[in-house]
Amino acid sequence: MSNLEYNNELVQKYSQLSRTINEEFINIHPIQRGGILTPEAFKALIAYGDGYSLCDNCLKGRIDQIENPPVVGFLKDMAKFLNIDNIMVTAAARESKRLVMEVLSKKYPKRKTVLIDSLAHYTTYLAIESNNLKVSEVPNSGNPEFKIEAKDYEKIIKEVRDKENELPLLVVLTHVDYKYGNYNDPKPIGKLCKEFNIPFLLNAAYSGGILPIDCKEYSADFVACSGHKSMAASGPIGILGFNDDFYDDIMVNSKIQGNITSKSFPSKLCTVMGCPPVYGAPLITLMASFPTVVKRTQKEFVDEESKKANYVIDNIKNVKGIEILGKLPKIHPLTNIKTEGFAKVAESHPRKGFFLRDEFKERGIIGLLPGISKEMKFSTYGLTWEQIKYFKKSFIETAKKYNLL
Amino acid sequence: MSNLEYNNELVQKYSQLSRTINEEFINIHPIQRGGILTPEAFKALIAYGDGYSLCDNCLKGRIDQIENPPVVGFLKDMAKFLNIDNIMVTAAARESKRLVMEVLSKKYPKRKTVLIDSLAHYTTYLAIESNNLKVSEVPNSGNPEFKIEAKDYEKIIKEVRDKENELPLLVVLTHVDYKYGNYNDPKPIGKLCKEFNIPFLLNAAYSGGILPIDCKEYSADFVACSGHKSMAASGPIGILGFNDDFYDDIMVNSKIQGNITSKSFPSKLCTVMGCPPVYGAPLITLMASFPTVVKRTQKEFVDEESKKANYVIDNIKNVKGIEILGKLPKIHPLTNIKTEGFAKVAESHPRKGFFLRDEFKERGIIGLLPGISKEMKFSTYGLTWEQIKYFKKSFIETAKKYNLL
Repeated sequence: MSNLEYNNELVQKYSQLSRTINEEFINIHPIQRGGILTPEAFKALIAYGDGYSLCDNCLKGRIDQIENPPVVGFLKDMAKFLNIDNIMVTAAARESKRLVMEVLSKKYPKRKTVLIDSLAHYTTYLAIESNNLKVSEVPNSGNPEFKIEAKDYEKIIKEVRDKENELPLLVVLTHVDYKYGNYNDPKPIGKLCKEFNIPFLLNAAYSGGILPIDCKEYSADFVACSGHKSMAASGPIGILGFNDDFYDDIMVNSKIQGNITSKSFPSKLCTVMGCPPVYGAPLITLMASFPTVVKRTQKEFVDEESKKANYVIDNIKNVKGIEILGKLPKIHPLTNIKTEGFAKVAESHPRKGFFLRDEFKERGIIGLLPGISKEMKFSTYGLTWEQIKYFKKSFIETAKKYNLL
Repeated sequence: MSNLEYNNELVQKYSQLSRTINEEFINIHPIQRGGILTPEAFKALIAYGDGYSLCDNCLKGRIDQIENPPVVGFLKDMAKFLNIDNIMVTAAARESKRLVMEVLSKKYPKRKTVLIDSLAHYTTYLAIESNNLKVSEVPNSGNPEFKIEAKDYEKIIKEVRDKENELPLLVVLTHVDYKYGNYNDPKPIGKLCKEFNIPFLLNAAYSGGILPIDCKEYSADFVACSGHKSMAASGPIGILGFNDDFYDDIMVNSKIQGNITSKSFPSKLCTVMGCPPVYGAPLITLMASFPTVVKRTQKEFVDEESKKANYVIDNIKNVKGIEILGKLPKIHPLTNIKTEGFAKVAESHPRKGFFLRDEFKERGIIGLLPGISKEMKFSTYGLTWEQIKYFKKSFIETAKKYNLL
């Protein structure tokens, strides 16, 4: 029997799962800003909260073939939105990357190296590792811009080819990186991949849903997006966009057969274990937020969000010991700054590295990494101008309090 | 640029994602009954709707190490509840199974066959297929009971061993199957697996959260559960329980290193791509419902639910052409009946096979598979006695309407 007793203590333990900070605080954590639900998604979340709520009207046993609610139409609209031939949903963007590497490994069993930019997310590395592949990094320019140069891709491609007598399996470009929020133009790298005939994956986890994406223009064969990171979905849910060239590699129907029963499941996709795990809230909230996502990635809204990020930067850059990292001006609002002045304060502050987080929290701002005062990462995405000005004011006040301005 | 225009049509298209049926109808679909949210989970869902909401206070970069909300404590409590050494959460139960086969394939590379009962869920087959393994089925007794006999496991284990000169990689038992809702006692099979020294996985997707589970008593090395199927979680979320013997196989830390940057991620789990995709609503709703799940798997509540299922069966079994499939009396309320009488009606009915679904829908009952009148699958789990009696009455009324009683 279970070693766990049902009693009041157990009930109490799990009765406090509130998240009031969500309403009362401004959350500037970069992984949070793009995932905040739209009112439409919130409504859908409440309606479709139960586990398999999307499957009420599943007629074909495949989530991507459900007509009511309009999943089929949504996948087509998403394909148009990203300008790529096909869309499948996945558990998360990391799973999209893992899956692409898996199917390419089967298609090109001799190719063993994945080329990535050196600001790739850790999950890009883990996708490589879990497919038993090798990584080859494209360097960046280092402090302070950490720029990736398209020309270095060509050099590294050739290095891999010469060393291994095989082309790289895949080239990955992080459209906007997690660390400095640098925007990379995929076009020259896509063009290069076409020349060398290497599949090209754009990791758009931070950009798809925030910035416009055009896979055809980029010559991208694959795109990985994140609904919960950048498309205002509750998630977790990932998007995998892929070209027709790879349709048969991604959409692999099951072929296994029971040795006694002869049961088989030819309509099920083996690559996503039948249906990807997004049976209710993850997919429905992605769908509900979709019109807003389409709208907010139009030029005028994107420009406005860049303006907010650059406004904050312009107003805090003169604080003592501040150095803005990454390329400027910002295109994507994910920002990273060196805060040597604050780091110095931390040395003699009773709360040590936590003091900066405390200061902001007292001012109603959360999302700073705990215990770190040497660097600060934030995103202003989706904050109102009022909130932007308040954040700037809080930053300046804190700097003045510690004589850094 | 995107081929998709933002306009009123787009907004309209995704503005109707309501699910009123949820409130107004009784949903008897077996995949839905165990996943219906508790009021506590509903509250948590609303508070933690945003994508990465659980990660506000992540200090170690690992979801299983978050203390606030109490994920660490929850995983320990869940381990006690299932009486197994360790718990990791996954994208879904299918992913738990896939992962177990993957890590065992690395541990025992010569063993190529997975032994499963012939009523295993299709995702068990797909987990085998996606790991390039072979399936060996244990037969069932066929119509009407479809019983799995523990003694057949021994026979098939020996057959595999003799044929391949290797033991099976894994033995899987479906605790309660998706098709007939048959309950299988894991104890004799677990004992057998110990004798032969073969890892034993219990697929408890339909039972964990509905019936009591005791992995130590069963000698189960692994258990796969489903939060959205049977633990009142919004999900999707799976549970993977595993014995200490397999701790190092499941909890594999990343070893990859950037060739230029030397970046590495030793704290990240390679097997679940860093953190399993359950960063907000899926895990928090599982936690919020947990006390209720502990309570509802106590004997008195389990007995009451069996009683409801058997009450319906006793009251409809005399309808013309009805045959109850699976073992009786029911332990788990998932029920499958042959409805030859209704199938005959369908032949001349203008709505053909859809008529039965229509009849029930008119009476406020949904969840019947569309277009099938030969078999009917339902679950009475969690319905009130009032609803049970109403369902029975609706069944009888429909039978009378078509002269089947």
